[in-house]
Amino acid sequence: MPELRHDPIQRQWVIIASERARRPSEFEVTVTQQSAEFCPFCPCNEDKTPPEIMAVRDGFSAPNSPGWSVRVVANKYPALRIEGDLDRAAEGLYDRMNGVGAHEIVIETPDHTRHIADQPQSHLAKVLRTYRDRLLDLQRDTRFLYVAIFRNYGESAGATLSHPHSQLIAMPIVPRVIEIELRSARDHYYQRERCLFCDLLRQERDAGSRIVVDNGDYIAYAPYAARSPFELILAPTRHQHDFAHITDDGTEKLAAILIETLHRLRSALNDPPFNFVIHSAPNIRSRSVWMQDFPYLADGYHWHIEIIPRLTKSAGFEWGTGFHINPTPPELAADYLRRVKY
Amino acid sequence: MPELRHDPIQRQWVIIASERARRPSEFEVTVTQQSAEFCPFCPCNEDKTPPEIMAVRDGFSAPNSPGWSVRVVANKYPALRIEGDLDRAAEGLYDRMNGVGAHEIVIETPDHTRHIADQPQSHLAKVLRTYRDRLLDLQRDTRFLYVAIFRNYGESAGATLSHPHSQLIAMPIVPRVIEIELRSARDHYYQRERCLFCDLLRQERDAGSRIVVDNGDYIAYAPYAARSPFELILAPTRHQHDFAHITDDGTEKLAAILIETLHRLRSALNDPPFNFVIHSAPNIRSRSVWMQDFPYLADGYHWHIEIIPRLTKSAGFEWGTGFHINPTPPELAADYLRRVKY
Repeated sequence: MPELRHDPIQRQWVIIASERARRPSEFEVTVTQQSAEFCPFCPCNEDKTPPEIMAVRDGFSAPNSPGWSVRVVANKYPALRIEGDLDRAAEGLYDRMNGVGAHEIVIETPDHTRHIADQPQSHLAKVLRTYRDRLLDLQRDTRFLYVAIFRNYGESAGATLSHPHSQLIAMPIVPRVIEIELRSARDHYYQRERCLFCDLLRQERDAGSRIVVDNGDYIAYAPYAARSPFELILAPTRHQHDFAHITDDGTEKLAAILIETLHRLRSALNDPPFNFVIHSAPNIRSRSVWMQDFPYLADGYHWHIEIIPRLTKSAGFEWGTGFHINPTPPELAADYLRRVKY
Repeated sequence: MPELRHDPIQRQWVIIASERARRPSEFEVTVTQQSAEFCPFCPCNEDKTPPEIMAVRDGFSAPNSPGWSVRVVANKYPALRIEGDLDRAAEGLYDRMNGVGAHEIVIETPDHTRHIADQPQSHLAKVLRTYRDRLLDLQRDTRFLYVAIFRNYGESAGATLSHPHSQLIAMPIVPRVIEIELRSARDHYYQRERCLFCDLLRQERDAGSRIVVDNGDYIAYAPYAARSPFELILAPTRHQHDFAHITDDGTEKLAAILIETLHRLRSALNDPPFNFVIHSAPNIRSRSVWMQDFPYLADGYHWHIEIIPRLTKSAGFEWGTGFHINPTPPELAADYLRRVKY
């Protein structure tokens, strides 16, 4: 069973994935699978993955057979396990609980080589609705406090299989970065009864200098204190705290701006590796007492997507201190991305 | 002038190094300088660096000429600038100040190719005393709240010049990771009037399973909630809050355990890239009001060194959430490092 561990110095939960423990010799350089090799995510190989949890199928094809356009399966090597209780316990000054959670793969397309920016808008909207529908389903499990949804593109961004796919991890804790955002938003709401993100988006629109795309419903912008070059935030302009509440129409408009933004990044930076991560509200149905601290979550938090091109290697300084040196001012990045031909 | 920027969502200061702004085309892959190429840190090239700030010289050689064994110079491309006032200001909901600070390079040896683990103990102790002496000097500047001291080894750990060197960055803020540690230690001290780290070290010594080396004065151990495989902490067993207070004798014993620990890591993991970062107390002489929050700093904080081998690529999940999946339990890592022949 994987374990969640917490130490009182860093105040951070870590997954210790002891079941797939790696010994020193196993830290060889892994190379992203080439398209010529066998791919478990390609059509006709459905029996090489765990059974599908859901799939978008346009015709009358059977589960776990070809005919799907988006397919969700459990991760074969999950970081967390779906079965069991948390069994929270102390170990002296430390805290632990069982690594209970869900770890799912969203196979975004049957087409092994299609770049995410080259998906038709209607198809990417289906992928986004799949995220939403899985999120809604996972939120019914009261053991789960948070569901992380993220996408790695390119080997140096952590993708080990090249077939287009994203991941969902449902977990019994809230990751530290999200917790900091929630506390910031809560403090702002207590002082002003306004959403911090709504205020910031208004300020960004007034300034204009960091905006890359604004389609009315969503904006993509380079944040004021960007930690790395060409880091972007994509957010709905109307207040919405939980990505699970996005409408079908919302997914169409989000797909459109995501495609445009990723096209601009690809043209500007020569197809860079990147990650995107959806930051959304924790699960309001969770039985964790943690939720008691955030009674105004729906009014005070605002979901958004972080897009991080992986252009620089993070050095010891960044890792050891959480303090970042960004050589590209966000105004310069935004200006470049606005002008680039794509 | 570089700028320090803070946004109210992440509550984190970031250096925006606008003077060495990088445009998209500049994000080509940089290759670590080969030893055959020109090296500005080698003896006889002293005029290719900024003038030396200090040097350890055994004979009667002149400054900025050969004859040194450890040499400190200003970084030619500093992340922060030494001149000027902070000029703190708001920009709407954001905060900024001038990027005032110091950025120094400690050239650890005249020998271009010597691995840090192969330094004689007496030489590495000189390097550690150089860190200490620079720290003591930089703490006299009341604009500086924190001095980060760190070492990158290997290209994928962020080292761009292969000649052995470490870096010091003095800054007017406390990095977030250090701030979290300080708050944890303070809360523990307020409840118990004991140092959190002293308590943890005692518990680690009692358990034994995560200890790699214990030489009486210092221990190296794998932390309970290690975020990455083979991550280690090296700490003095006797309470000491500020690395600037280490004695000459202390540097000898620290050098000994550092060499043994790095030897074990090198043997176990085939000479991995790594970072180490000294976590020490902020500058008690700083004029920042921030210090008012930590009246018991000297009793409640405890300096230590984090050593992080860079074995896995951090994926989007880690970056976007601050939540880590570690495939190697620290007990397994410690056991392996204790047994490895080196």
